[in-house]
Amino acid sequence: MAEQLDDALFQENERLGVVIDERLYCNVGAMTMKAGGQLDEVTIAYETWGTLNAERSNGVLICHALSGDSHAIGWWDRMIGPGKAIDTTNYFVVGTNVLGGCQGSTGPASLDSEGQPYGSRFPVIQIEDMVEAQQRLMQHLGINHWHLVAGGSMGGMQAICWAEQHPDAVQRVWCTASAAAHSAMQIGFNEAGRQAILRDSEYRGGDYYATQGPVQGLSVARMLGHLSFLSEASFAQKFGRNLQSKGQFSFDGSIEFAVESYLSYQGDKFTKRFDANSFITLTRAIDYFELKSFENAKCDFLFTSFDSDWIYPSHQSAALHQLAVDAGLNSQHIEISLPWGHDCFLLDGENQGKIVKQFLSD
Amino acid sequence: MAEQLDDALFQENERLGVVIDERLYCNVGAMTMKAGGQLDEVTIAYETWGTLNAERSNGVLICHALSGDSHAIGWWDRMIGPGKAIDTTNYFVVGTNVLGGCQGSTGPASLDSEGQPYGSRFPVIQIEDMVEAQQRLMQHLGINHWHLVAGGSMGGMQAICWAEQHPDAVQRVWCTASAAAHSAMQIGFNEAGRQAILRDSEYRGGDYYATQGPVQGLSVARMLGHLSFLSEASFAQKFGRNLQSKGQFSFDGSIEFAVESYLSYQGDKFTKRFDANSFITLTRAIDYFELKSFENAKCDFLFTSFDSDWIYPSHQSAALHQLAVDAGLNSQHIEISLPWGHDCFLLDGENQGKIVKQFLSD
Repeated sequence: MAEQLDDALFQENERLGVVIDERLYCNVGAMTMKAGGQLDEVTIAYETWGTLNAERSNGVLICHALSGDSHAIGWWDRMIGPGKAIDTTNYFVVGTNVLGGCQGSTGPASLDSEGQPYGSRFPVIQIEDMVEAQQRLMQHLGINHWHLVAGGSMGGMQAICWAEQHPDAVQRVWCTASAAAHSAMQIGFNEAGRQAILRDSEYRGGDYYATQGPVQGLSVARMLGHLSFLSEASFAQKFGRNLQSKGQFSFDGSIEFAVESYLSYQGDKFTKRFDANSFITLTRAIDYFELKSFENAKCDFLFTSFDSDWIYPSHQSAALHQLAVDAGLNSQHIEISLPWGHDCFLLDGENQGKIVKQFLSD
Repeated sequence: MAEQLDDALFQENERLGVVIDERLYCNVGAMTMKAGGQLDEVTIAYETWGTLNAERSNGVLICHALSGDSHAIGWWDRMIGPGKAIDTTNYFVVGTNVLGGCQGSTGPASLDSEGQPYGSRFPVIQIEDMVEAQQRLMQHLGINHWHLVAGGSMGGMQAICWAEQHPDAVQRVWCTASAAAHSAMQIGFNEAGRQAILRDSEYRGGDYYATQGPVQGLSVARMLGHLSFLSEASFAQKFGRNLQSKGQFSFDGSIEFAVESYLSYQGDKFTKRFDANSFITLTRAIDYFELKSFENAKCDFLFTSFDSDWIYPSHQSAALHQLAVDAGLNSQHIEISLPWGHDCFLLDGENQGKIVKQFLSD
């Protein structure tokens, strides 16, 4: 399954030229961040599928997780497309790259008005700022409200933030494998990844764009990600104690196990498509996020989670559902039993598909 | 509880001068490793408590985990001492530092016969080699068999290896929070730590002893260790989303959360007492280890595990117990319910104490 996931996640990288052609760009103007920092000009990269109806009422916003991008039919093509749960023959689907990202939207690697990469000067952003930029894009598209805002993990945080920050602009939120706020352990995993980057001598305080940058640290950070996104069972199923291209141990200090090779391969591949400063910026935004109530929200909620997801455990989705119930809103939480850990939210089209289809038809 | 653990684990470091005075050293001669490498001379550092009786039948060998050392009354003083489950008024307790370690026994930082640190020339060692060195120490001490061999995590692997490799020298084995072989996920966590070190530009292929060495990579590797040794509950209990010495977020790129400060503090502290090459050598030995049966063993077994230990899950101890049962041996497996993750085996004196006391009196 991890191989399927990789295909889904990384095909975008392998056909980057094509994807760039599909990307659209919207200048959403100057922004002052929630934490106070400023950007004189913000561009949001996005892609759309399907057609906006005459009532402009069939818009669906897809919010991506840490390493995702605007190409939602790609990393989430089990959920989105013609005949899928989020059916592009019925809905006008919009995927964006988040503010602070590195796949077309303004982020730390972007050039300022002087033509210099922001690097260390890029402001601290929060989930609320990502949503603000998306809201301006929504206005640009002539949409007043979304039929659905959906996302998993960091994308789920954006979705629930939309419900609270722009209650009149959201009819339904589907939030999968996410949390109202990161726990200490989740912050810890993010921080270990950040420290791998910050402690790389090539990081240079974040102003590394004239050089190769902290690719070793970023690679280690990505290995950590893979360790936390999978489960004991999925690691066992995919790798077990299989050796790497050898019938026996070499005992020469080289990589021995297939799982070791996999981690380094994924880590190194990640450095070719992702910027270390974006990793730091986005993981900090995730850690800062803390939704305390749905006192402003008006939408219907669907929360899904997976019993094998130990890094975003189900009780966090149950707590979100309870917040929605406490606010008097229609809400449901469904825990799905599948063995692949946090990656389930990307890999599972079948269960999530049925549940989301029902949610959209209610 | 983590604070108590730190006290237990690191007091040794803080009173290093005293501890070195308590250490004894045994030259166990030249060794050829199971994988073929050689060392012309091996020293094993050890400490003892209690008195060997006239029958030489009350010896207890304590085997340490990855970051431990010979100072078992220190990191395991909840279990060992006068009146404790492993009662030093009855037993002659021996703690050793493993072959390949960095607390007195021959390891990669040791000097060869030319006076140069082994570094990259240190051979690949396995758990079986650690046991072989301990067996020579046993002979040096005039002991023919151990009343008990005990250890947790990597120490548990040594204990079960003793049972199989020297069946006549072991009467009882207590193996806690351990496994017959590392799973792919466990290998993955070790490998991410190794890669953090190997990818540090200061690693220099392992021959870094004339310089500061890969302290940044080793620090990140230790952060990973702490993430896997604790549990969601223990992180939540100790840190939650508490901020670090501030009433509010600073939004200045510095550390914000207490858990972040904790991880960097523990990581950096570790680099002052541990050698990066030992980290690589010992984690590889752990990953190589695979006990397939107890066909040679003759001893009684006690396996304990903890329901919150997600990195060494209970089913691995249950499988070890089954191997002992399959070999027709007396064996029991007891799962203990405590919330502190893998660290439980160090923190829990109460439950493990009662169980081990009973095991020793049987």
